[in-house]
Amino acid sequence: MIALIAFDADDTLWHNEPIFGQTKQKFSRILTQYHSAEWIESRLDATEVRNLARYGYGIKAFALSMIETAIELTEGRVTGAEIREVMDLAWEMLHAPLELLPGVRETIEALAAAHRLMIITKGDLFEQEAKIARSGLGDFFRHIEIVSEKTQRAYEQIAARYRVRPDRFLMIGNSLKSDILPVVAMGGRAIHIPYATTWFHEFVPEAELAGKEFFTVEKVSDLPKLLTSLTAE
Amino acid sequence: MIALIAFDADDTLWHNEPIFGQTKQKFSRILTQYHSAEWIESRLDATEVRNLARYGYGIKAFALSMIETAIELTEGRVTGAEIREVMDLAWEMLHAPLELLPGVRETIEALAAAHRLMIITKGDLFEQEAKIARSGLGDFFRHIEIVSEKTQRAYEQIAARYRVRPDRFLMIGNSLKSDILPVVAMGGRAIHIPYATTWFHEFVPEAELAGKEFFTVEKVSDLPKLLTSLTAE
Repeated sequence: MIALIAFDADDTLWHNEPIFGQTKQKFSRILTQYHSAEWIESRLDATEVRNLARYGYGIKAFALSMIETAIELTEGRVTGAEIREVMDLAWEMLHAPLELLPGVRETIEALAAAHRLMIITKGDLFEQEAKIARSGLGDFFRHIEIVSEKTQRAYEQIAARYRVRPDRFLMIGNSLKSDILPVVAMGGRAIHIPYATTWFHEFVPEAELAGKEFFTVEKVSDLPKLLTSLTAE
Repeated sequence: MIALIAFDADDTLWHNEPIFGQTKQKFSRILTQYHSAEWIESRLDATEVRNLARYGYGIKAFALSMIETAIELTEGRVTGAEIREVMDLAWEMLHAPLELLPGVRETIEALAAAHRLMIITKGDLFEQEAKIARSGLGDFFRHIEIVSEKTQRAYEQIAARYRVRPDRFLMIGNSLKSDILPVVAMGGRAIHIPYATTWFHEFVPEAELAGKEFFTVEKVSDLPKLLTSLTAE
């Protein structure tokens, strides 16, 4: 029996990673007179990961990492006007149209009629709430939890808060590192739906998957069939 | 009977507002060659409030507002080196020593022995979690809720989630706008502990307080006596 079905949001319900990828390219074009695109993007990646512990996830953190990278790369020669262009990129990201993945709306609507659904997403509280509101999916989810990191402990706390036994908790998402492995570790169920691209920070070496039990489906609309067999157990 | 006692965090359990006030002064000194301190600070205040709807609360949002203000005020003439100084201010804020208000530790420890305590704080998830961890108070609180805005609806959702009747829910905090009025509106109890300074954005005109029932104490260590009479009802 499954008592609670939780969905990841970014790159599971809607596209997210491409917005970051496109922004990195635009960022390197702003600084093109100073360095090669390749070098600029690799420096930005390094700054971004270094700053996760300082700022956390999200667009505001990424904006500050872009500005920091622009100053470092140019040894302070970057102009105020160029920094303004970088800030405009952050504004564009915050206002980028939210595009649901194919089949998401119909599938979620159908599942909500038969199951208790929730969203568990990590990242910036303000930005995630705004995206959930813009998605038009909010009403299908009975609970929404926005966490700073998706650790085993974070999942255990959520299961306790909603009084669900771990083996009756099912998590669905695109990130092996954040959505699948910590849930399997607590004794929960998990369904992986790979996304076209994986942010390098979320990459899991194949060896770490050995012996881990979880399901994989290709797309969200494959879920109802799998869930029918799972919930009939 | 009181079933759940919730505390605000910033400027209720620990000092927060002074860090922003001091940073504004440092910010205006960085730009002193361009404008008067008064003008710079008033422009920053305006940018900050305008950006609340774009970025939400917290230090990352404030950092982006400082950078935006620096660019605007100088019409793009601000240098990369000056922007770097502004970013260093944000770094300082994130690492500022967390100072508990007088009597907080003893009072919270004593109350936790007899009551179910929680923290309800608004702002940036990542930053608030870091402050709670650094405060050393986390273990005294059974639940922690970080919300993007402290509206009546936010309080109602929390009361429902923890299965507490509104009239058995008590909120304690320094902000009339965020901690007291929305709780009174949902039929809950509230205790106001004024802080030395109120962020202008949180200011409530006196007329709005007419007819509202809540308690006021001067300091956190005044709470146990008041709570004894309240919980004996």
